[in-house]
Amino acid sequence: MAQKPSIPKGTRDFSPVEMVKRNYIFDTVKSVFQKYGYLPIETPAMENLSTLLGKYGEEGDKLLFKILNSGDYLKKADDGLLAEKASNKVMSQISEKGLRYDLTVPFARFVVQHQNEISFPFKRYQIQPVWRADRPQKGRYREFFQCDVDVVGSNSLLNEVELIQIVDEVYRLLNINVVLKLNNRKILSGIAEIIDASDKIVDITVAIDKLDKIGLDKVNEELASKGLSAEAIDTIQPIIMLSGTNREKVAKLREVLASSEIGLKGVDELEVVLNYLDVLKLDLEVELDLTLARGLNYYTGAIFEVKARDVAIGSITGGGRYDDLTGIFGLKDVSGVGISFGADRIYDVMNQLELFPKADGAKTRAMFVNFGGEDELYALQILNEVRKAGINAELFPDAVKMKKQMNYANKKEIPFVLLAGEEERKANTVTVKNMESGEQSQLTVDELIKVISI
Amino acid sequence: MAQKPSIPKGTRDFSPVEMVKRNYIFDTVKSVFQKYGYLPIETPAMENLSTLLGKYGEEGDKLLFKILNSGDYLKKADDGLLAEKASNKVMSQISEKGLRYDLTVPFARFVVQHQNEISFPFKRYQIQPVWRADRPQKGRYREFFQCDVDVVGSNSLLNEVELIQIVDEVYRLLNINVVLKLNNRKILSGIAEIIDASDKIVDITVAIDKLDKIGLDKVNEELASKGLSAEAIDTIQPIIMLSGTNREKVAKLREVLASSEIGLKGVDELEVVLNYLDVLKLDLEVELDLTLARGLNYYTGAIFEVKARDVAIGSITGGGRYDDLTGIFGLKDVSGVGISFGADRIYDVMNQLELFPKADGAKTRAMFVNFGGEDELYALQILNEVRKAGINAELFPDAVKMKKQMNYANKKEIPFVLLAGEEERKANTVTVKNMESGEQSQLTVDELIKVISI
Repeated sequence: MAQKPSIPKGTRDFSPVEMVKRNYIFDTVKSVFQKYGYLPIETPAMENLSTLLGKYGEEGDKLLFKILNSGDYLKKADDGLLAEKASNKVMSQISEKGLRYDLTVPFARFVVQHQNEISFPFKRYQIQPVWRADRPQKGRYREFFQCDVDVVGSNSLLNEVELIQIVDEVYRLLNINVVLKLNNRKILSGIAEIIDASDKIVDITVAIDKLDKIGLDKVNEELASKGLSAEAIDTIQPIIMLSGTNREKVAKLREVLASSEIGLKGVDELEVVLNYLDVLKLDLEVELDLTLARGLNYYTGAIFEVKARDVAIGSITGGGRYDDLTGIFGLKDVSGVGISFGADRIYDVMNQLELFPKADGAKTRAMFVNFGGEDELYALQILNEVRKAGINAELFPDAVKMKKQMNYANKKEIPFVLLAGEEERKANTVTVKNMESGEQSQLTVDELIKVISI
Repeated sequence: MAQKPSIPKGTRDFSPVEMVKRNYIFDTVKSVFQKYGYLPIETPAMENLSTLLGKYGEEGDKLLFKILNSGDYLKKADDGLLAEKASNKVMSQISEKGLRYDLTVPFARFVVQHQNEISFPFKRYQIQPVWRADRPQKGRYREFFQCDVDVVGSNSLLNEVELIQIVDEVYRLLNINVVLKLNNRKILSGIAEIIDASDKIVDITVAIDKLDKIGLDKVNEELASKGLSAEAIDTIQPIIMLSGTNREKVAKLREVLASSEIGLKGVDELEVVLNYLDVLKLDLEVELDLTLARGLNYYTGAIFEVKARDVAIGSITGGGRYDDLTGIFGLKDVSGVGISFGADRIYDVMNQLELFPKADGAKTRAMFVNFGGEDELYALQILNEVRKAGINAELFPDAVKMKKQMNYANKKEIPFVLLAGEEERKANTVTVKNMESGEQSQLTVDELIKVISI
């Protein structure tokens, strides 16, 4: 009769311990987003398939989770296609909705649908799960959270600067040592333009990225093998070997890209951002990195990527500017720029480096041992005072063996255990046991509140 | 080309204004849950259909959203059934997963699956969306949030008391005037027992509920029409006319139910809870109400329901004790008690009574008008100070016409607009405009921070 319960592969339950840590991350990013005037939106888990299909490439279409229509869903399906078992073609006849695949397309849909209620520039953040029917593997899930922060409807580079400020503040608060890599799509286009090889951008960035590992000769060999002419390779030598400070790199790029209008535009944009950052004196290290080539299909200006210095885990935050987010839904000329914080990876980094605070405002600070009868009622009244002081505290609900109650406190990592029997009741006190040090002391309620406050 | 974007019927987008209000509710309930030692868990949106099917009755099975299997999903479907278009039978061959329908079944599954990691009693809360393919109508959605708080693994009535304390504190913080109705399933069973009519519980409670409207004679007529004997109706006259204080009702019930063991057990439980509540001196009005008959299929002890006094909207919180939540998944004898806060209804009540705070910590407090150039850089530096003080503030990103910038501040309901030109820069000040009163004053940064703090 009884089933052995399990959950779908690639999905996760989050225990209280995990939730408290995850919420620490979410609460931190939210507080920073809000400090800069970004406000939350949420969109439904299900979107119409017409909204989702065709937005993530052919592979993405396959990875969408589709929802079976309700009721007699086969009624309208084509007999011939059913007989052929043409899964793909039948799909559109039996499913109209899918689970969201990311937060970007629903956001674009939201902006277009609510354009008359929105005051632009629209600064929003969105923290919600997304679903992908990917093959599950270590660190890759079928349900995972994205934390996106975007501003749409403004071309100002101040927005790029603001997002960099947000990155700086989030990681300072989380205590993660990071470097922000910065690039500009227009510079990459400029490089392609001066050597007349617009289809080779990815090959070029991939090859340059290997410079440290394989050396200049091998990089040039690789570029040649990808079809770049000797002349082209020669032209971009200064770019391959680009080094020095961000300012030195900018100066060199301005020289090399002198003949490319779009390239110079990219250099200008980059320089404006660097100028702002100088004024703002961020702690964050910002590094111009031409090999950064994420989202070439949609980014049109700045490209960002953030890496943790002390853990080898890839990018933990990334984003960029896109000039036509909402065009697909009929609203033209809305430029936006945004970044996405990778909650799962940030979690892993913080866990590995033990950066989560031991005392978290969400956890229980103190547990009263339940001795039943009068003692129980006394404990309830003390707890009223403790909770009024904003402290999370509980009374074990059953007057069972002391050992069982202490085990519970231990497993829940409650730092203080409270005991009150006849002696304490008469003296109007509580005995407090510090679970880490083992120390015990008999205190008044006011003293107790001071001791157990975070 | 461009699609007119929309979302599936019965689902909603939440705008920043709505989100800030919703989060105010969620943050309030969370803070109270945590104060009593409850911690969050989250479960996946998708559960295996084997977990969900058969748990909500036949109608519930139909209302589950099913996820189409990935890949060539028709391959394993039976040809004959496909040809017959037997939607129901084919379903189990092409779909293995569904969206969660409530938080109770996933919670039961969670407890059983993680029983070795959990320390009982397990106090958890869970705030997540659920999905039902119900016919959408006013106030009924296909995606909506549930806020559940439960403790499992303890029979102590202290848990019931704690949940009532939580209700008291949540609604005091939200400023909603409520009454908590309390009943006990065992009392209802006792009533049925003394008149030997266990199948008539619902009929009896429904009839009694009409007493105020239709009067005693009509109630008795209705009971007769439902098949109760004259003797049975006579026996329960004192119960139909039950009135007075909770204590008076308890005394009367104890008398009438004297011959029913289970009935007396229910009266005992009720009395213990009332005793605790007396000691705790809650503000909350608690009313013993025998017509409260929610969840008769699963509740086995206390039944709770909370109603707002000032808005006609039905129950805004409800719950009860269930003695065998996890049995269906193979873990016997785990008793639990829990309540669920109805976020959508609470939202409606607060909106209608205008109970949401005007100044919310999530909203933007101040916006700098952007005059470009030096003024912009000055504004950025002031903003650094303001944000360091924990205040949400922004700079309009483009140096466009004043009117456009003020419109933005207006629409976003930002209460203070900041202006700084050459004069302010030289004096190291900022001009602050109070958007409600229209007052303007030139302040130092320290003064500014004081003025715009909540």
